[in-house]
Amino acid sequence: MNRFPVALLLLFLLNLPTFSQEIQWEPIAPGVWKGSSGVPESYDLSSAAQPEAKLAALEKLGAEAFPLNQGEITGIQRDGNTYLRFPLERGEQLFGFGLNFKTVHQRGRILRLHVDHYGGTDNGRTHAPVPFYVSDRGYGVFVNSARYLDVYAGSASRLDSDDPPEARDRNTDSKWTASPYSDAVEVMVPAAGVTVYVFAGPTALEAIQRFNLLNGGGALPPRWGLGFTQRVHRLYSQEEVVREVDEFEARGFPLDFVGLEPGWQSKSYPNTFAWDPVRFPNPAQLVKTLQEKGVSLNLWMNPYVSPDATFYNSLTPYYGSHTVWAGAVPDLSMPAAQQIYWENFTRDHVEIGVGGYKIDEVDGYDRWLWPDVATFPSGLAAEQLRQTYGLLVQKQSAQLFREQNRRTWGLVRASNGGGVSFPYVLYNDYYNHRDFITALINSGYSGLLWTPEARASDTAEEWLRRFQTVVFSPMAMINAWASGTKPWTYPEVEEEIKAMALLRMQMIPYWYSSFAQYHFEGIPPFRGMNLEPGFVEAKPIGEPKVSMDLESNPYEEAIKSEIKDQYMAGPSLLVAPFFAGDTSRSVLLPKGNWYDFYDGRYVGNGEIIEVRSRLDQIPVFVREGSLIPLMEPRLHAPGPNERVDLEIRHYGKEAATYWYYDDDGYSFDFENGNFTWRELKVEKDGQGNWKGTLSPASKGKPNTIGKVRWKFMSLEE
Amino acid sequence: MNRFPVALLLLFLLNLPTFSQEIQWEPIAPGVWKGSSGVPESYDLSSAAQPEAKLAALEKLGAEAFPLNQGEITGIQRDGNTYLRFPLERGEQLFGFGLNFKTVHQRGRILRLHVDHYGGTDNGRTHAPVPFYVSDRGYGVFVNSARYLDVYAGSASRLDSDDPPEARDRNTDSKWTASPYSDAVEVMVPAAGVTVYVFAGPTALEAIQRFNLLNGGGALPPRWGLGFTQRVHRLYSQEEVVREVDEFEARGFPLDFVGLEPGWQSKSYPNTFAWDPVRFPNPAQLVKTLQEKGVSLNLWMNPYVSPDATFYNSLTPYYGSHTVWAGAVPDLSMPAAQQIYWENFTRDHVEIGVGGYKIDEVDGYDRWLWPDVATFPSGLAAEQLRQTYGLLVQKQSAQLFREQNRRTWGLVRASNGGGVSFPYVLYNDYYNHRDFITALINSGYSGLLWTPEARASDTAEEWLRRFQTVVFSPMAMINAWASGTKPWTYPEVEEEIKAMALLRMQMIPYWYSSFAQYHFEGIPPFRGMNLEPGFVEAKPIGEPKVSMDLESNPYEEAIKSEIKDQYMAGPSLLVAPFFAGDTSRSVLLPKGNWYDFYDGRYVGNGEIIEVRSRLDQIPVFVREGSLIPLMEPRLHAPGPNERVDLEIRHYGKEAATYWYYDDDGYSFDFENGNFTWRELKVEKDGQGNWKGTLSPASKGKPNTIGKVRWKFMSLEE
Repeated sequence: MNRFPVALLLLFLLNLPTFSQEIQWEPIAPGVWKGSSGVPESYDLSSAAQPEAKLAALEKLGAEAFPLNQGEITGIQRDGNTYLRFPLERGEQLFGFGLNFKTVHQRGRILRLHVDHYGGTDNGRTHAPVPFYVSDRGYGVFVNSARYLDVYAGSASRLDSDDPPEARDRNTDSKWTASPYSDAVEVMVPAAGVTVYVFAGPTALEAIQRFNLLNGGGALPPRWGLGFTQRVHRLYSQEEVVREVDEFEARGFPLDFVGLEPGWQSKSYPNTFAWDPVRFPNPAQLVKTLQEKGVSLNLWMNPYVSPDATFYNSLTPYYGSHTVWAGAVPDLSMPAAQQIYWENFTRDHVEIGVGGYKIDEVDGYDRWLWPDVATFPSGLAAEQLRQTYGLLVQKQSAQLFREQNRRTWGLVRASNGGGVSFPYVLYNDYYNHRDFITALINSGYSGLLWTPEARASDTAEEWLRRFQTVVFSPMAMINAWASGTKPWTYPEVEEEIKAMALLRMQMIPYWYSSFAQYHFEGIPPFRGMNLEPGFVEAKPIGEPKVSMDLESNPYEEAIKSEIKDQYMAGPSLLVAPFFAGDTSRSVLLPKGNWYDFYDGRYVGNGEIIEVRSRLDQIPVFVREGSLIPLMEPRLHAPGPNERVDLEIRHYGKEAATYWYYDDDGYSFDFENGNFTWRELKVEKDGQGNWKGTLSPASKGKPNTIGKVRWKFMSLEE
Repeated sequence: MNRFPVALLLLFLLNLPTFSQEIQWEPIAPGVWKGSSGVPESYDLSSAAQPEAKLAALEKLGAEAFPLNQGEITGIQRDGNTYLRFPLERGEQLFGFGLNFKTVHQRGRILRLHVDHYGGTDNGRTHAPVPFYVSDRGYGVFVNSARYLDVYAGSASRLDSDDPPEARDRNTDSKWTASPYSDAVEVMVPAAGVTVYVFAGPTALEAIQRFNLLNGGGALPPRWGLGFTQRVHRLYSQEEVVREVDEFEARGFPLDFVGLEPGWQSKSYPNTFAWDPVRFPNPAQLVKTLQEKGVSLNLWMNPYVSPDATFYNSLTPYYGSHTVWAGAVPDLSMPAAQQIYWENFTRDHVEIGVGGYKIDEVDGYDRWLWPDVATFPSGLAAEQLRQTYGLLVQKQSAQLFREQNRRTWGLVRASNGGGVSFPYVLYNDYYNHRDFITALINSGYSGLLWTPEARASDTAEEWLRRFQTVVFSPMAMINAWASGTKPWTYPEVEEEIKAMALLRMQMIPYWYSSFAQYHFEGIPPFRGMNLEPGFVEAKPIGEPKVSMDLESNPYEEAIKSEIKDQYMAGPSLLVAPFFAGDTSRSVLLPKGNWYDFYDGRYVGNGEIIEVRSRLDQIPVFVREGSLIPLMEPRLHAPGPNERVDLEIRHYGKEAATYWYYDDDGYSFDFENGNFTWRELKVEKDGQGNWKGTLSPASKGKPNTIGKVRWKFMSLEE
């Protein structure tokens, strides 16, 4: 009781604005600055993710000046909160803030960044609400807080602004707007202080690269992670799993890893994490059998512990106050809890050869997670664990595989800033195909990976269209165990689907090098058009609309022209998916010559083209002077160090260079330098003939390249 | 800078849980207890609303024991927040939490109580998110905080619960549920402490009465406030307003007050609050002209000040940091700001006879209000002003009329706990008819008033159906200025609408006494069936559904059987509206005999009846032994002290008593005792004949009752 006077004093102090609002910036790498306002909390996104910054790569990106006017970045403490402000210029556009599903342009939006199930509105409540944004002016900002953050991304107008919105008379002024101009991003951090990072460009892509590299660079998947995956019925037995795998093989459909849903456990929701003795009497044998068939095993889990788990009691000191679906919640921020918890996974799954996890229900939807009034033995707030639990389970489960010196590639339902380097792809229960593509675009702005998984479809066409986009994504997943849909379910598109699946396999060399770029340079393998050189956004469609229909929608605004249905995949490919029902679509090509991926013909340059739909193709276009390495179509990704023949496709009329990444495809030996970048080059030889060359292998380094065949897609030969 | 070590120390202290979690309770009136956890903030809902508790009425309700186990109510301080917990029993149901539109049962729900535009989901973000709930076990709880509150209304399960949910195996147990049992309401208050009130019953209605009386009792409208109101086109001139009023008269449609939309001002959004000299050259004359026609004038406003307002500069020290649609936001928590601000309203509007305001845009929708990072000269947080601005403008604007000793009856778009006694009815931009009725039901659980206003309709039938519910609501409003729809727009229902409008007028004596009950006894004039004696909720429709469709909706739950489309109006009437398209509907009658309002026939007792739709009626049923006082159909409410003849309708086969409230209908003289309750009684006389009597008028008290005629609706005469 006698602490109250002190608490009152503190409240009084916290309610006073600080006098020094300007943030002091410290350069921590070329083009990266760290600043803090108030007294930052000891636990933040970086504490949870503990990324190892790729400093050498940051050095390589080079020095840049601080990209903003430092005097215009302010932070104050008031009412127990920290209020941050960052300047915006007229005409500036923002991207990022994590896994949004419906919007790409973020300027003008109000978001509460809060790890949550996606509820159908881009309001900040999403599986990975990353507090990082990037500007088309070529800089990025990361607010390193494990709190729910309220973001006003250019929506709040200040009375004392140097560039305030004009007061207009709504009675008679047709230019009146319900969204007056705002010259700042403002962020409310519910804490007495926070650490902030600013990233220089000069381009937005470079700002993203710096953000990604500071957070460890993207994860490098094992090669098998880039092949196809199927998830099987939750109550399948061991034999049924093998039978399904065999059917893929028999039908000629590729498959690299198969996922088991909750029924592999003796009890689940809450979980025992123990194999069900009836359905899975010999899991080690199952893993071995599958391995012999070239297929890895992935296990569904959510982290909450059943009273029937053998280790339930040993974790008692480390449980949070509240349960999730009657399961105890281990406080995985505590090393002692981590130790007890994960050793079960190592022993029962990883050591027998399981390849990865699908980690469910770490996002929430409020009622399906602990409440914000939960308390945890570490002393962290429920909010802090909510924001970081996805990071913690990714970090800690990935470590289990690292200890075996083999890579994993899994699925997770929540992440946050700092999780760039984790070998996990996000997924959810939402199922709007167009929005899945927008999410794929947005993932690239925030250091995330996202799969537009195919689960079910109303029609053969929809199944095909979804399948086509899965092929051009970080994880080629069929998660159709509940609907029972198989790749071959719709006979009228079975051949098209098989061809697409095999194309995914052919492209593994291209995907693998794209992920290596993510890892080593921080370039997102899947990303929005706005990051592409030469991309000029179309004018707004129609005139900005000032609604005078004050009844049904009094505040209707102009429809924005953001491009959210086409994206870049790897260094050279522009993907413009068709959705079920489309008969044609327009594609906005960046400046430069673009060529059709399938037949190499020229399609346009800095313009909008109209593409007619055909069932057998997802439209893909290739930038002038690109090389695309393909391998033979096959049913399984290359094994460790397995050598494959390549077909190198050249697109365009110009010389081209491509850096081909190579390593064993399986272990972490690449972290010790056990990798190479091989140079592929197409140029005219002395006789004026186009010719392709491959730089020689380095001695003692992995070399998985067999024979190389060059194919000139756009040149008259 | 040297304040940091102290702040850190205090943060540390605040992060420690307190050892004494139990709340100490102090009785403040019979059946009302006040308790506090931690150090409550000095600014709360009561500070903003400053209600005058009706202590005598609370005394009259009588003493009751504390309705909960005090040891089970706890509060702790942690992480700068206060976590409250209140026990729940198995089978208990909760109601309240303010203006919800889709749900009546609140147990199991998770709400963030946050003043906001209603966004289509009952998630706590609504125009009046009152932190008060009532239990069908007969008690209520009010969390008196001006913060955004996170409420887990029986959705959070604790590991240490005495009655925890059972862990089930989702793989095979068909009783697995995604919403496990929870035995508590938990509330997160983002502050170092909070004051809480507990209200005894023994019934839920009595708990609500106590809550209402503690907050001053309901507002008593002027009699004209219960007549019809129409809002006219925003750019109408003075002459056009008069013309519209004349047209109502000419067509024989009632009208008591007419509302002007933003165009009465010289500039609006932001506002000058000054009459437009072109459209309104002589406002005093307009008010006088309308008064002579028996019509009062209501003015739209939102509180934000245009730089062109004459008093803009004088308020400069009192503006918040951010603007709303380029208007400055006066910090109306500050007396000096109130003084400067409202004197303009008094001088320019109230003193010339304006009857009331429609106060818009005090709710938000985030971008249409100040952001949470705004700062205010009073030092209050943006959040605190957001939660209470609706209370402040109601309180302060109502005071302007009180100073003239005349009552007002207006519209407001935001309120909160504590606003019970303000003469304002809530409205919004949403327009779902069914949900409007659910909101009307919910308003009665939280000390609110709500109008299901008619704005526009797709069909004549819809227009009629909406009109019928407006008649049975706190404000009979046509707000169709934007659509241009008039009561007579659809000729095919014009007669039915006119009859309904005149019924509203006939019922003014009944409505007026119902509001007097709200004022003096705290009984909501419009309220949910669950508060009605003899009401037994129907069984769930069908079996509780445990979804095994894990694909489209993995967590689907049983459909609840809550009744949200029928309600009680005044002491005796059960209203069961039809919605456009309905050909029949079921009505759940409480136990006891019920009679048809229109013809007095018996309809049922404690059962579900099916009612066929007819255009000319909204189904209304009357409880056994009820008296309904009606006056003649007329176009305007009775003026001050005007005497009217009454028809007293008796329903049922039993003796009946009714307390008829009477005063001048206009001033605040009733607060000085200048009112009477007259007893109406129907009983058998010595000869066994049914007979009605009216108690004599009290000398020196108002008496507006003229001749009385008795009508026995259900007796064979």
